[in-house]
Amino acid sequence: MTSHGKIRFDVIFEAVGHNDAKFRNDVQVFMRGAHPASYHLPTDEGAMHGGDASAPYPLAYFASALTACVMTQIRAFAKRLSLKVDNFDVSTRCHWQGEQVGNAPYVSVPVAFNMDIDIRGQLSNSDKRELLKAAQSGCFIEASLKPGLVVHRLLLDDEWTEV
Amino acid sequence: MTSHGKIRFDVIFEAVGHNDAKFRNDVQVFMRGAHPASYHLPTDEGAMHGGDASAPYPLAYFASALTACVMTQIRAFAKRLSLKVDNFDVSTRCHWQGEQVGNAPYVSVPVAFNMDIDIRGQLSNSDKRELLKAAQSGCFIEASLKPGLVVHRLLLDDEWTEV
Repeated sequence: MTSHGKIRFDVIFEAVGHNDAKFRNDVQVFMRGAHPASYHLPTDEGAMHGGDASAPYPLAYFASALTACVMTQIRAFAKRLSLKVDNFDVSTRCHWQGEQVGNAPYVSVPVAFNMDIDIRGQLSNSDKRELLKAAQSGCFIEASLKPGLVVHRLLLDDEWTEV
Repeated sequence: MTSHGKIRFDVIFEAVGHNDAKFRNDVQVFMRGAHPASYHLPTDEGAMHGGDASAPYPLAYFASALTACVMTQIRAFAKRLSLKVDNFDVSTRCHWQGEQVGNAPYVSVPVAFNMDIDIRGQLSNSDKRELLKAAQSGCFIEASLKPGLVVHRLLLDDEWTEV
């Protein structure tokens, strides 16, 4: 583990979920490693889906996780790349479809996850592209998704530009 | 949209995130559609990662989302398949690695997401297999992940069995 050699590190999160009835899932999440942490992150469905709306939908957590994962890497890697980022906004639209016949269990298909990124600070357009590219490659969630599913646009000179 | 024809429905969640400084991301999530809902799901990093631990890590939300998405479909599809499920537990271990050289931005790689499912009720082993298979196919998050990444085991006759 020298400062110039390649190093690998592990990132492990465990979730333990229990369901007693209906759609309420009590989920406890544990970050493993030298500085462990844990969180109670229950989910439920809304009334229209037969739930009690006692907690967010699972997909609400997913949408936050994906968006915030890229955001976290933008902040972390700006420092590593010595880029002066003031603040930034990221908006993600996660679109899936379900396909079903009659009342049989349905099949899910992701359509597209569109992510718009607006980074403000003392950065050139090419700095922004470099930073976003690094953030994508470092995002644990993006790395786990089907290739091509996330489509990114950067705000460059006031124009949304696919990157 | 007859009861026998194939129908498609859309599922859309949008996340809007803002970062002002450090690792705190304020994220608002919106479920779109006929019965909209919204949630404030901020994230932060722990102190060891330079954050203020003011909210869960993004990956904590992800681990809950993946686990609870499958759980929700187990509950929903048990009903559609007329299977008598009392209660169930699902544990997921999400394992990633980061690879870095020196202090350059690192690259993320998913290693495996291991999911153990214990369904209790008046079900045969083959009922449990059928139910889990349907839940996997209906899980919006699993459908978005790289194929083969999630490895499932069912507790069948007190033995963990890969399925």
